[in-house]
Order: sequence, then C-alpha cells, then structure tokens
Amino acid sequence: MNHIISIHDLDRGQIDRLLFRAGEVTNEYAGKEPLKGKILGLLFFEPSTRTRMSFESAMLRLGGSCMNLGGVEVSSMAKGETLADTIRVVSGYADAIVLRHPKVGAARLASEFSDIPILNGGDGAGQHPSQTLIDLYTIRQSMSLDNINIGLIGDLMYGRTTHSLAYALTHYNARIHTIAPKGLGLPDSIRDNLEERGSSVIEHDSIEEIIGELDVIYVTRLQRERFPDPAKFFDVSSSYRITPSLLSDVKEHLAILHPLPRVDEIDPSVDCLPYARYFEQARNGVPVRMAMLTEVMS
Amino acid sequence: MNHIISIHDLDRGQIDRLLFRAGEVTNEYAGKEPLKGKILGLLFFEPSTRTRMSFESAMLRLGGSCMNLGGVEVSSMAKGETLADTIRVVSGYADAIVLRHPKVGAARLASEFSDIPILNGGDGAGQHPSQTLIDLYTIRQSMSLDNINIGLIGDLMYGRTTHSLAYALTHYNARIHTIAPKGLGLPDSIRDNLEERGSSVIEHDSIEEIIGELDVIYVTRLQRERFPDPAKFFDVSSSYRITPSLLSDVKEHLAILHPLPRVDEIDPSVDCLPYARYFEQARNGVPVRMAMLTEVMS
Amino acid sequence: MNHIISIHDLDRGQIDRLLFRAGEVTNEYAGKEPLKGKILGLLFFEPSTRTRMSFESAMLRLGGSCMNLGGVEVSSMAKGETLADTIRVVSGYADAIVLRHPKVGAARLASEFSDIPILNGGDGAGQHPSQTLIDLYTIRQSMSLDNINIGLIGDLMYGRTTHSLAYALTHYNARIHTIAPKGLGLPDSIRDNLEERGSSVIEHDSIEEIIGELDVIYVTRLQRERFPDPAKFFDVSSSYRITPSLLSDVKEHLAILHPLPRVDEIDPSVDCLPYARYFEQARNGVPVRMAMLTEVMS
Repeated sequence: MNHIISIHDLDRGQIDRLLFRAGEVTNEYAGKEPLKGKILGLLFFEPSTRTRMSFESAMLRLGGSCMNLGGVEVSSMAKGETLADTIRVVSGYADAIVLRHPKVGAARLASEFSDIPILNGGDGAGQHPSQTLIDLYTIRQSMSLDNINIGLIGDLMYGRTTHSLAYALTHYNARIHTIAPKGLGLPDSIRDNLEERGSSVIEHDSIEEIIGELDVIYVTRLQRERFPDPAKFFDVSSSYRITPSLLSDVKEHLAILHPLPRVDEIDPSVDCLPYARYFEQARNGVPVRMAMLTEVMS
Repeated sequence: MNHIISIHDLDRGQIDRLLFRAGEVTNEYAGKEPLKGKILGLLFFEPSTRTRMSFESAMLRLGGSCMNLGGVEVSSMAKGETLADTIRVVSGYADAIVLRHPKVGAARLASEFSDIPILNGGDGAGQHPSQTLIDLYTIRQSMSLDNINIGLIGDLMYGRTTHSLAYALTHYNARIHTIAPKGLGLPDSIRDNLEERGSSVIEHDSIEEIIGELDVIYVTRLQRERFPDPAKFFDVSSSYRITPSLLSDVKEHLAILHPLPRVDEIDPSVDCLPYARYFEQARNGVPVRMAMLTEVMS
Repeated sequence: MNHIISIHDLDRGQIDRLLFRAGEVTNEYAGKEPLKGKILGLLFFEPSTRTRMSFESAMLRLGGSCMNLGGVEVSSMAKGETLADTIRVVSGYADAIVLRHPKVGAARLASEFSDIPILNGGDGAGQHPSQTLIDLYTIRQSMSLDNINIGLIGDLMYGRTTHSLAYALTHYNARIHTIAPKGLGLPDSIRDNLEERGSSVIEHDSIEEIIGELDVIYVTRLQRERFPDPAKFFDVSSSYRITPSLLSDVKEHLAILHPLPRVDEIDPSVDCLPYARYFEQARNGVPVRMAMLTEVMS
C-alpha cells in the first residue's frame, strides 16, 4: 500500500490488517521509534484540527517529526500555482503527506504527482478514509464487525462520514438503519450502491422504533444552516437527540459513536453511560493513524 | 503536583522547590532527554507568542516534542463545542497541555476534564502562574526573596502580573510600594488581601520619592486605550518612564523587571545598566518552564 | 561564519565551500544527527512557505528541532515592540534564527542584537542568500559555474532573486543576458555594479535571438499588478513564455531555472524535457539549507 486515498480502494483483508495493527501498535512500538528520522508533512488547505492533531500525535508517538506544509492562504497556491506543482515541490521536503483539501478528488490527483505516500485527510464531500477506519476500530473494540445492526442518525444527505462507514460495513454484512429528517436522508445513489453490495438499508421515522435492535448508533451533527427556519431547526434537532431516557431499553453492548464535535445531538448526561464511545473514538485517532503511518512509511 | 493552575495554589515550599529546580535544570539535564517521547500540547485560544515559545523551547530542551492544539478560530469550539469536550478529546493526543484562554477560570475548568496535567498559560484577567515564577526567579538571581522592597509601577488596576507577583511575595514578607496613575491603582480587594497576608502596601505619588529604597522595580505597560485623551496618555506615561537620570542614586543590587513587550516605559539607554534585568527575565522563561514541565511530567 | 545575511558578504571561496558541502551533506550525515538537541527558530514577519518549509525540513534531517517564533500579526511587535527587543528575547529560545522580514536591512539589524546566528530568509527587496545558493547549486549540478552564458528573463526590475544570482555569478565570470519587458529591465545601478565586477551584461529584445547560446535560462514571474492594462499583461507575458518550440535548438546541457511558484511563464509541457531543472531546484532547498545550518551551528 503506497497511498491511502479512499476506503473504496481497500478490500476487507486490507481493512482488517490495518485495524489489527492499530490494536497492536501502541504496545508493539512502546519505547521504540520506528519512524525516527522520518518527516510527515501536513498540507491542510482547510482547517481540521482533530485530523491534523491526531496524525501529528501518531507521528510523534512513532518517533518521527511533523512539519506544517502551510494552508492555502499563506501558500504559493494563492499566487496561482497548481496543486500538481505544489505537490511536486513539497514532496521533496517530507517522507509522506497528509492532504486535506476542499475539493473532491484532490488527494487522488496529488498522488499522481507525488514521489512519496499521500494520505487523504479529507477531500471536501469526498473521502476521509482514516475517519472510517477509526469508526470501524471503535466498533470492533466492543463487538465483532460482522452482521451488526447500525443506526445512522442525523444529516445523512451531506454527512460524508456516514456514507464511507456504511460502504465499509458492506464488507461485514451490516444491516443499515437510517433515521434522518425529511430532505436529509441518504442519497438514492448511495443507498443503491450499498444494496448492490449486499447490505440491507432500512429507513425509519424515529429512533425509538428501532433503538432496541441496534448494536451501534452513529450520530452526526445537524447543521443549522440546512434549515431556512430556525424554529424548524430546533424542532427537528430535538427529535434526533440522544438522551438517557431513550437508552432505557437497549442492547448491553450498544456503542454510541459521533465524529465530534457535538453540539446538542447527545445530551451530556449520556457521557457517563457505558454506551458512550465517542470520546474513546476521538482518541482512537492516534492508534489508527499510527497503523496507517507505519503501513505507508516502513 | 498534577496541574499548575494558580500561584495561589502553591505554598512557599512548593514555590521554593520550583525556583530551586529552575536553577538546576539546565545543568542537570544537559545532554539528557528526561522528557523524550513525551508530547506537550499547546492549546492557545488567544495568541501569546512569548508564553508559547518559551514553553516550546523548554520542552524541546528536555528532549520532548510539542504540538499545536489549535486556536479557537480554526477549532471545533468555533462549531459550538464546549471547552470540556475539547479537553476530553485533545488530552488523548498529548502528555500535558499548556492552556491559554481569554476567560477567567478556564484552566481550572479544563483541569477537571483532563486526564493529563494542565499548565495554565494565562486565563484572561485571572492567573498566569509561570509568569509569576519567572518574576520570582529573576529577583532571586540578584538577591534573597525575603523582606524586599518592591516598587510596582504603571497600570496596577488591570496588570495581572503585578497582582500575582505581589501575592506570591507575601510568602517572603515583602514591602510593596505602588506608583500608579490616578484610576489605575491597585484594586482595594487586592490591597486588602495582601495586607491580610502580612505585607505592607504603601502608595506613592512619584517614583522619585521612593526609588532610593527599592530592591526591585517592576514596570508594566500603560495601555493607550485606558486613556480617552491621547494628550493625557502622553503626559502620564512620560512621568512613569524609567530613565538613566532617575537611577542616579539607587541601591547597587536594584533589579528592574518588566514582563515585556515594552514600548516607552523604559528608556533604551537603561538597557546597558546593570539594573536592567528584563531581557534576562524573558530568557528565564525557559529554565522556569523546564522546571514546571519536569514537575508535572516526570 | 556566524550570520548569513547577504550573498555580498561571501567570497568565492566561501560560496564554493557551501555548495560543496551541500553536495555532501545528505550522505555525510545519513543516519547521524549532527544538530540533535539544537533548536532552529523560524521568525517570519511575512509568509514564505517554501523558504520556511525547506529550512524546517533541513533542520529535521539534521536531527534538530524547529520552533515557530511567530509572525507579526500575533506577536509583540503588534504591541509596538522594536525588532531589536524581539530579537533579544527570542534569541534566548533557540540556537539559530531564520528571519524573514518585509523591510530591507532587517536581517543585518537583527544580527547586531542577537547572541545566536541569524540566517536571512529574505528581507523585502533586499537579500535572500539561501535562494541564490540554491540557484548556484542547481546550475552546478549540470555544468561548471565558470564562464556560463545565463539568460535572465521576466521582471528584472523588481526580481530580487535575479539581482543576487547575477551578482554571485560575477565570481565565476558569467556573461549575463537580459530579456525583460519595457520598464521592467535590470536597474542601471545593478547593471553598473555587475560590469564593474567584470561581467558583461547584454540586453536582448527577444528570447529567440539568444536562446541558442545560453547555458542557463532563469525565468521569473511577471506580476499582473505591474501592468495597469490587463490586455497588455496578457500580450507581454505570452511573449516571455517558455514553450517546447522555443527549445528546439538549444545547447544539450541547457538548464531552465525558476524560483517558483510559476503561473504561466513556463508551459507545463516543458516539465518533462531534460532542460527543466526547476523542481529539482526547489528540492535543492533542503541540502543547501542543511549546509548553511551546519555551517553556523556546528
């Protein structure tokens, strides 16, 4: 594996190997510096502190160094340089690059001009494979990935993370339950693709009607700006909110995930329940990205 | 000691230990890397280059690494995340955090949600304990901390550093002399607290009347924006200015401190006099912060 | 050599030594960490990602660490501090400083107040010695530096890099050919200085008339903002554009350089020709700056 651009490029074997390695990496490399002398370049054309920080932490934990390759506002792209030229230059400064870019396909394009591995740190509405691997890894900490019932809740129209996760779970024969406000449901093209790959996708009107059957709840943020009427936003968002009372009769191993930051989608009193896995999920960014970095650099 | 939030939390013994360690740390760890493999997270919600840089330099000198945890403008807080959630996430990426925040009490709050040590790098008008330790350390390089006469000059109303320093000096039985423009004197509550703790606080109308008795002069910046009338600012600021002629008859060991940056408060021709300790004070940020970092992380 | 401020300060022997070292440094220090424990401070008062990144990469490749000393917008200079004070403070945090500043002479001034080496990373329309060393190093990879014919193309009025390169080449007896739009030719004072130093400077009306004789073409960006009339800019820039057809009858070892970023000055189809040396030139920033860093710090 040279570049990691999209979760669609990875087969089940490759995903399983990365997840397994993420589970081993912290102990395996304790006190060692497998990437000592290596430089990870962080090329973020839009801000994404969590992605940047956990890649940076992962690289430092492996004994390597990081350098910021600059964002668009201070860079040569502001002077009209193409992404291809930028990549050709900065790939001379580092041993691998994490690229975050607002445009779909940017990471793939970059990989064609780079001598060194490109790790896609999110390209607009496109792919963000490390997030999907983190989601899978977090689920796998609580249960087998095979044959789970997962509920996707919130904005499933624009929520890139839910699309990639659902796609990846087709390798594991998941049943996918969707609960979304009107107009923010899963796009038909994505539903069709999931079903072609053998997953069932079941639409629900409320969380209550399905929550007892779920192994995983994946909550995403509803963005206020999708709702022209603020009152409407308030109504809708409150009915997609995870509260302790909603969780009174759920499976014992239920795992609640959220890509964070959350605003009001999960009541803070849920944080101390055993189902809450979202802070663990955020922290899992480090071992999962350690696994990715060792995969492409060693 | 786990977190370092406020100088008020430290007793005289703890302060003395940190100051002693600051004096030893450079030699003690020369060629060693006591914090190798550790990561210091810098979480600055407002800019403060000096504080950030000297913590960073201190961490690198100890063999550790630093990572920028991002400021508010690029962070998840801009999306409405609470400080508690931010801390819960980023404390998974580092081994200690220096927090700079515009709101009083932020560092204390952060410490309640963090698994790793929080070092307060300044919380608004609140505390900035490393600055106070640097001030004490710089005085201690020239004289014993006990029973000194210190003159606090400039804006004593809003000048956070002078409040904390005066407080800390009550452990050492200081006599505190204040010289401030009308309306910018030491707040009564702070004066009362200092006196309750056994220090005498004496107000003066001019620097000249007391300068011969002082062991330490602590100068702070007068901020133009506190004066509605620019001409008034000019008049006032020039009468609080430290010049060589003012220093013609002072104690031999007099130490002039300033938290920097200075603008016009100290004439540049003072820089080459033996009393000028403010550049040394700035550089003392490194050993003092090395002492703090080893205290909480090793 | 303590500071590196201007290419004018270096004699031919010193330049040759740095270029030689740049050629050796990657192999010589492979697996070693000659600057381990050292900190390079990056003090950039205006953005320059390429310069910053390649100094940072160079420092990391040598086993050292880097720290950002902050730009003007977040720094104490915004509060009215002088450059002298800033340098006196930050030179306590690092072992050498790369300074980028918008004002001519800033690096020289800084060197007078600094206890540690200052490397000029560009001071406005003034000097940028590491860029010139990179240019020389790149030429030297293809041919001897002595007695070359070099064509300087584009904006030679404001193009700092061409002035410094032409100056440095007078050590090597170069013949300098200039091809510039009206009003953007080489300033008379610079031409006179080059001729006094023994170089011939020959002005040409078009690239075509001289291209067959050139060993090196150095292309610079024409800036749209120099042309009040956009149509005029388009006309002029297209006649200073390097295309494959222009290169049909050139010397075999011709090297085309460009400080990058390029916009339209070089047709992308030139990239795959053997003459294109500009991406290599960008990458040469790392070994050349490694040579500079070891020169001043070890």
